[in-house]
Amino acid sequence: MSKEEKNLIAYHESGHALVGLALEDAEKVQKITIIPRGKAGGYVLMTPKKEKFVQTKAELRAKITSYMAGRASEEIYFGADQITTGAYSDIESATYIARRMVTEFGMSDLGPIQYEKPQENVFLGRDYSNPSRNYSGQLAHEIDKEVRKLIDASYKHAIKLINANKDIMDIIAESLLIKETLTAEEAEYIYANKKLPVQVQDMKDKFAKRQLEKKLKKDSKKEEINKDSKKIEAGKKS
Amino acid sequence: MSKEEKNLIAYHESGHALVGLALEDAEKVQKITIIPRGKAGGYVLMTPKKEKFVQTKAELRAKITSYMAGRASEEIYFGADQITTGAYSDIESATYIARRMVTEFGMSDLGPIQYEKPQENVFLGRDYSNPSRNYSGQLAHEIDKEVRKLIDASYKHAIKLINANKDIMDIIAESLLIKETLTAEEAEYIYANKKLPVQVQDMKDKFAKRQLEKKLKKDSKKEEINKDSKKIEAGKKS
Amino acid sequence: MSKEEKNLIAYHESGHALVGLALEDAEKVQKITIIPRGKAGGYVLMTPKKEKFVQTKAELRAKITSYMAGRASEEIYFGADQITTGAYSDIESATYIARRMVTEFGMSDLGPIQYEKPQENVFLGRDYSNPSRNYSGQLAHEIDKEVRKLIDASYKHAIKLINANKDIMDIIAESLLIKETLTAEEAEYIYANKKLPVQVQDMKDKFAKRQLEKKLKKDSKKEEINKDSKKIEAGKKS
Amino acid sequence: MSKEEKNLIAYHESGHALVGLALEDAEKVQKITIIPRGKAGGYVLMTPKKEKFVQTKAELRAKITSYMAGRASEEIYFGADQITTGAYSDIESATYIARRMVTEFGMSDLGPIQYEKPQENVFLGRDYSNPSRNYSGQLAHEIDKEVRKLIDASYKHAIKLINANKDIMDIIAESLLIKETLTAEEAEYIYANKKLPVQVQDMKDKFAKRQLEKKLKKDSKKEEINKDSKKIEAGKKS
Amino acid sequence: MSKEEKNLIAYHESGHALVGLALEDAEKVQKITIIPRGKAGGYVLMTPKKEKFVQTKAELRAKITSYMAGRASEEIYFGADQITTGAYSDIESATYIARRMVTEFGMSDLGPIQYEKPQENVFLGRDYSNPSRNYSGQLAHEIDKEVRKLIDASYKHAIKLINANKDIMDIIAESLLIKETLTAEEAEYIYANKKLPVQVQDMKDKFAKRQLEKKLKKDSKKEEINKDSKKIEAGKKS
Amino acid sequence: MSKEEKNLIAYHESGHALVGLALEDAEKVQKITIIPRGKAGGYVLMTPKKEKFVQTKAELRAKITSYMAGRASEEIYFGADQITTGAYSDIESATYIARRMVTEFGMSDLGPIQYEKPQENVFLGRDYSNPSRNYSGQLAHEIDKEVRKLIDASYKHAIKLINANKDIMDIIAESLLIKETLTAEEAEYIYANKKLPVQVQDMKDKFAKRQLEKKLKKDSKKEEINKDSKKIEAGKKS
Repeated sequence: MSKEEKNLIAYHESGHALVGLALEDAEKVQKITIIPRGKAGGYVLMTPKKEKFVQTKAELRAKITSYMAGRASEEIYFGADQITTGAYSDIESATYIARRMVTEFGMSDLGPIQYEKPQENVFLGRDYSNPSRNYSGQLAHEIDKEVRKLIDASYKHAIKLINANKDIMDIIAESLLIKETLTAEEAEYIYANKKLPVQVQDMKDKFAKRQLEKKLKKDSKKEEINKDSKKIEAGKKS
Repeated sequence: MSKEEKNLIAYHESGHALVGLALEDAEKVQKITIIPRGKAGGYVLMTPKKEKFVQTKAELRAKITSYMAGRASEEIYFGADQITTGAYSDIESATYIARRMVTEFGMSDLGPIQYEKPQENVFLGRDYSNPSRNYSGQLAHEIDKEVRKLIDASYKHAIKLINANKDIMDIIAESLLIKETLTAEEAEYIYANKKLPVQVQDMKDKFAKRQLEKKLKKDSKKEEINKDSKKIEAGKKS
Repeated sequence: MSKEEKNLIAYHESGHALVGLALEDAEKVQKITIIPRGKAGGYVLMTPKKEKFVQTKAELRAKITSYMAGRASEEIYFGADQITTGAYSDIESATYIARRMVTEFGMSDLGPIQYEKPQENVFLGRDYSNPSRNYSGQLAHEIDKEVRKLIDASYKHAIKLINANKDIMDIIAESLLIKETLTAEEAEYIYANKKLPVQVQDMKDKFAKRQLEKKLKKDSKKEEINKDSKKIEAGKKS
Repeated sequence: MSKEEKNLIAYHESGHALVGLALEDAEKVQKITIIPRGKAGGYVLMTPKKEKFVQTKAELRAKITSYMAGRASEEIYFGADQITTGAYSDIESATYIARRMVTEFGMSDLGPIQYEKPQENVFLGRDYSNPSRNYSGQLAHEIDKEVRKLIDASYKHAIKLINANKDIMDIIAESLLIKETLTAEEAEYIYANKKLPVQVQDMKDKFAKRQLEKKLKKDSKKEEINKDSKKIEAGKKS
Repeated sequence: MSKEEKNLIAYHESGHALVGLALEDAEKVQKITIIPRGKAGGYVLMTPKKEKFVQTKAELRAKITSYMAGRASEEIYFGADQITTGAYSDIESATYIARRMVTEFGMSDLGPIQYEKPQENVFLGRDYSNPSRNYSGQLAHEIDKEVRKLIDASYKHAIKLINANKDIMDIIAESLLIKETLTAEEAEYIYANKKLPVQVQDMKDKFAKRQLEKKLKKDSKKEEINKDSKKIEAGKKS
Repeated sequence: MSKEEKNLIAYHESGHALVGLALEDAEKVQKITIIPRGKAGGYVLMTPKKEKFVQTKAELRAKITSYMAGRASEEIYFGADQITTGAYSDIESATYIARRMVTEFGMSDLGPIQYEKPQENVFLGRDYSNPSRNYSGQLAHEIDKEVRKLIDASYKHAIKLINANKDIMDIIAESLLIKETLTAEEAEYIYANKKLPVQVQDMKDKFAKRQLEKKLKKDSKKEEINKDSKKIEAGKKS
């Protein structure tokens, strides 16, 4: 992975994590990493704050906001033209939740009516692509609009949260570039104290020290060489 | 299950039960429980008041109102943003009945015409998702509107019934939190007398007594400790 | 079956039968019964008046009117809110005929054109649900309107016929409640003479007599008891 | 078959035949019969006038007119309310030709473009119901209108032809009721000479003679009986 | 085949051939024949002028024009009401090319976008009838219009070419009626020299001579008979 | 392959290559060839500049522009009427990317929502043609417009790039006609130096030399012949 791509992925994952840290109704951040897994360049592991039988509308919206925050971070830090395909599965998950809120959970202006029925045990694969639909073309359009309303609102919410916490974003991203994987405690420490966790700061310091030592070593070598060449030149002149 | 979630589920189930108790045409409440079963946090068991060959339009509407009352109760007691996915299968069932009233039973302004034919003995699973439709896109839209009209009217009816019986709602919910499961007789007792059933009141009293005893015990211990510490302090001073 | 439901079914079946008796083009009523069979609470058996190769438009309309008359009777005698799911298969059959009149028999304002082709020998069940359609969405809407026009006209015709023959309706329904099953001759006798058939009248009289005898017996018993108690009271006093 | 139904079928078939006799571009009438076969109460056999590789637009229109003439005859002779399901397969065939003229032969205002492709060698029966369509919903509507225009024009043409040849229609129908099956020669003889073919006239005469003889026989018997009774009465008086 | 039909087919095939001869971008005419093969009354064999990897827009349009020219010729020489089903497969082929130009080759105002994906290796026959579509109903309508625009323009081009070359059309058609099959050389000879090819002219001359001899023979026979009959008459008179 | 077609293909492939050379975000040109392979007359091999987990919007747009540049080059150098079917698979690929950008990657004005879900492991071939769609007809139209917007913008970009680099285009095309296959280094050399690569220049020079030698040989032969004939003529005269 190039340095630029590593940086981009660090900010993408930091976006997801920030929402988990900043929003009361969001799930708990358990782990953030930029170590690639499969097709993904990194990921954030989040789990429900307590075991639950039901999920509230507020919790589902926070979940969507968290999914949107990766792309939102890309746009803020790298520009609209540099947004990536890395948000592919975030978009998939967010759309899935938003659709269910509208068509199954009755959580939109379309009211508590079931508009779609998932098919769990079907014989042929293609059935998966034909969920049982109970609506006309006109209603389909209204459903589309409600889904988009939910996603757009969450995307804007993510943009706002990131812009309001750029200092924290930078520290999470920097920590990821240094340590690659952060624990729940480290993430929470950054959010609470706005500075690098102790272990990360240590790694940074050691790295800086090593760099300095290398430089000094190189400089002294250069000096020796300089001296030598001066000697040679001196020798020549003499 | 957290205390908050238990409370939410208690009010959700109380909503279903209230409609069964208050509406002449509704089915009989046989059991109310907040003991989780499968994915459900609780449920209300209702059965027809007498064995019947046919069901009237009034009875089907009462059934939908009963299904809607769980979500209606969530909205009244916890706010529109805290409505939950717990109404998922209620919405499914209510929508199913409303659709059949419009498309098969001729019980809407669209008249006594069959618009959809259920397919009972089909070979492939996916057929289930393609009920035989006998109508144009325009009619599909009219059907959507009729279904929504039925659901909306029932939802409003549920809201009205719960608001008019908040005292009874509170007693049912409290009883559920104390005893977890209520019988038909207990539910009817609450509806008729607006007070806790004897057995539930007993449990509440015993619990209160135990709490009191514990407190007293603790207080006396504290006092002893206080005494002891005073002794110690006194000893120190001495 | 409750007494109320029996009464409702009796009037539902009387509605079907009346159309068969009153309309020249309708089929002949062979049997009326309120003995439940399968899911049905009762039924009317009707057969063509003579063996035929073709059916006229007038005959098909009479058939639809006959199917509609069960629901029409429910509405007239028990109110719009008490209409039942009992008309389910009537609606199915009437819709089927009306659709064929429009899409296959060329018997509507859409002209002598075939718009739908039934598929008789198909391999997979689901094909049944996809009749061969030869039309655009706009035409589909026109077909819907024609089908509804046919059904609505027949429903109004049924309402009119029942309202104009309430005396006969009452006698058929009463006969069904007394004797449960009526023959073609009995049905025609009622229609022609507006009074109970002899055998039914006999059953009614016998029943009334038995009721009277029971009452007299009870009354005389009461009297004896009264006498006895008077004696006792008298004895007490003495 | 009742006398009324036989009469209706005779006029229905006479309608088909008349178009074959009167229209230059129509096929040749080979046989007319009212002997039922399968579900049909009668039929007219028509064949191309000469063996051909191609069919002209004029010939296809004449074919549709011929199919429409059965229903047209029903409407003219028995009234719009007495039209029958007997035109079912005529409507099917006419619609099939009209659709192909529009969607495959380029013979309508929609131009020489192929809009539908028949599928000849398909594995499953249902495929038959899904001809390959190459058009949008809007074009589907235009195709519908063109098809209907073709059918309506042919229906009106059939009505006009029958009204202009009522004398011939009556003779063909009468011949069918007498002889049941007519040959090509007999049909053409009627069209050319406007009178019953010799053989048919013979059958009619013989039948009339037999009827007369029967009547005379009955009358003479009655007279004898009268005489006898007079004798008896006379005998009584004496 | 009747003489009229042979004549019609000769002009139909001459139309196809003329476009091949007159248009630079059209394919080369290899053979013209009115000997029936299968369902076709005749055909023109055309092949690419050189072996090619790609085809230009101009070449595809010339191909469509060539297909349209058969029907165009029918309309010009026999009238709009006498157009035949013989253009069936021409229409099929032309529509197929026009659709691909619009939906796959990006050769219309809809731009270089793929709107349809052919399915080559599918398991069930019917899949053939459901090409993968990537567009909305509105776009489907625009595609329809583009396809029609291409076909209509080519049909008009064909009409214009035939009207401008009626002399050549007549000579090709006459040659076909005399010799039934023409080679590439004969076709090109006619186009270049506007007269019958030598071999055809020979056949025409021989035929004319034979006809003349026959006539003379018949005339002389008639004369003899006349003489004989005169003798006889004379003999009678005598 | 004819000389004209070879020329056309050379410019088509040069178009693809130019975008790869000129656009920062495009993939690296590894090989350009006009040696036919399968149905293709030539091709350009391009690979990502570095191994990547994600692709940016800018990179995907550059990819589409690269696909469009073949057709764009045809239009610029040979005219709109001479565009060919050779762009068939370019159009297919470009449309596929553009659709995914809109419906899966959230890279259009329709927002970060998933509108289509690819189906990878389905049992029946036809499922391939029915990707899972989550939208109404109205949204389908908006998707169409976004896809077209992306393609049109890239096509215009390709036109602009080619027009601005006609000198380079001519050199690449000429090199291809001389050497048939160019390496990455040769392509980059041309782009940087605007002249033929050394090896290509050599081949050109050798070819020119051979042509010249042939010509000279022919000329000298002609001269000898001339001399001979002059001798002969002279001999004649003498």
